[in-house]
Amino acid sequence: MDFIKMHGLGNDFIMVNDMDENIAEGRLPELATKLCDRKFGIGADGLVLMLPSTQADVRMRIFNPDGSEPEMCGNAIRCFAKLAWEEGTVKKEALTVETLAGIIKPRLLLKGSDIEAVRVDMGEPRLERGEIPMSGTGTSPVAGETINLADGKNFQFTAVSMGNPHCIIFVDDMNTVQLKNWGAELEKHPLFPKKTNVEFVEVVNDSHVKMRVWERGAGETLACGTGACATGVAAALNKHTGRKVTVSLTGGDLVIEWDDKTNHVYMTGPAAKVFTGRVEIKEEI
Amino acid sequence: MDFIKMHGLGNDFIMVNDMDENIAEGRLPELATKLCDRKFGIGADGLVLMLPSTQADVRMRIFNPDGSEPEMCGNAIRCFAKLAWEEGTVKKEALTVETLAGIIKPRLLLKGSDIEAVRVDMGEPRLERGEIPMSGTGTSPVAGETINLADGKNFQFTAVSMGNPHCIIFVDDMNTVQLKNWGAELEKHPLFPKKTNVEFVEVVNDSHVKMRVWERGAGETLACGTGACATGVAAALNKHTGRKVTVSLTGGDLVIEWDDKTNHVYMTGPAAKVFTGRVEIKEEI
Repeated sequence: MDFIKMHGLGNDFIMVNDMDENIAEGRLPELATKLCDRKFGIGADGLVLMLPSTQADVRMRIFNPDGSEPEMCGNAIRCFAKLAWEEGTVKKEALTVETLAGIIKPRLLLKGSDIEAVRVDMGEPRLERGEIPMSGTGTSPVAGETINLADGKNFQFTAVSMGNPHCIIFVDDMNTVQLKNWGAELEKHPLFPKKTNVEFVEVVNDSHVKMRVWERGAGETLACGTGACATGVAAALNKHTGRKVTVSLTGGDLVIEWDDKTNHVYMTGPAAKVFTGRVEIKEEI
Repeated sequence: MDFIKMHGLGNDFIMVNDMDENIAEGRLPELATKLCDRKFGIGADGLVLMLPSTQADVRMRIFNPDGSEPEMCGNAIRCFAKLAWEEGTVKKEALTVETLAGIIKPRLLLKGSDIEAVRVDMGEPRLERGEIPMSGTGTSPVAGETINLADGKNFQFTAVSMGNPHCIIFVDDMNTVQLKNWGAELEKHPLFPKKTNVEFVEVVNDSHVKMRVWERGAGETLACGTGACATGVAAALNKHTGRKVTVSLTGGDLVIEWDDKTNHVYMTGPAAKVFTGRVEIKEEI
């Protein structure tokens, strides 16, 4: 099986053109688990397949290392859009991609024949308390409310859903953030009945913030697309920045725009091809 | 640059035939660091190069992810010997390989045209107290001496050097071993002035033991070739087993033979090819 290894801000994927490979449906979870293994396999955060679509230009499926199939991934779809162009599968700067989260519309930002970045419509943020979801009876949007840790420490936070919940906390100095301790505790805070992702954010200026993310179920990661989007929305809501902001994550930068006409959030960021490979996918790999 | 990804018991390497690639010497540490990165690069425990030799059939060099160049690696040389055969570079079942640790002589164990395993002469164990090195004035070999943890817990241990120090502790039940706590403390115990690798070993029968390893400077790993050799020697010294023993590590099995005529230790184990790849090695990857 031929594959291409790509990453978006260090979130890395094994990309397969399944129009050529035609992997049997039943083998996909097992293959994802074997191929994503970083010591015995190729190593990746996910296996991404390019497939034909009757509803869009092309279809993307993702499988996690545990064999489960998530709806969408902001870092993966940037890689996918770049690959579709470079492989010649969809030679459009604005393409439509069928995913389990619906039709996603990435747009390639070209400089000559090079793809500089990919811009993705991440949809509308949800700010209603119940939709995040959060418990309690405070007002919406949730901005400036206080959340407490067991040791008595407390933070002002903003809550935003981008399809998944985010608890955004603005801090004066990122170096003082104890992400592992605070993130793990806040993730499971009773205010968030379905748990939450946690973002600590330092404002650099009115168009630039730094962010570190604690992902629900995963811990600290190099980059989280929905987390950057939620942070852009929270920064604008709190008037720390305008509606267009560069979010510097551990893995690199994303530009987040919260459009005031459509209310949609647009995420622009890089996608990098690392290497091409060929692996035998017999019963054992 | 073309490469082949291989692993020996989960210890994984980017293998490059540098007779074809001719990578500039000065770029090797930087390339190893970039290519071994598991998120932004290919991902591996090391970059292994195949080179011509004037002293042996072929020469092996290894670079760690930090750019340093270790003398030798038992898991890497099994992969290397298999690759030399399969690439047709050295079509000998017993080949000689120049390394920074001297000439190593791996032997391929063939079943038809398949390589079932590779047997490597790992040299003589060192049992003299000063050679391990250990502090203190006890007798040699060091077998059955007591080592204490700060909390008062103590173990009987055996000390063996295979070019690097090992502290081997036999336990009744591997499930009771707190490797992270005990390994980290024993690694830096004052009895071992150059620190030590730590192996916890459960004897299954007189030809089979289970082992978990805490590697000096690395923490728990899936497999450690010199650790398995030292464990085989320690098991024989303490008459827990004969001089030929299967050591079951987290990453798989190695067979260790301590030859009574030559006093050399032979390690036999698998080497697996995972995939072939091609990566551009411009200034940025």
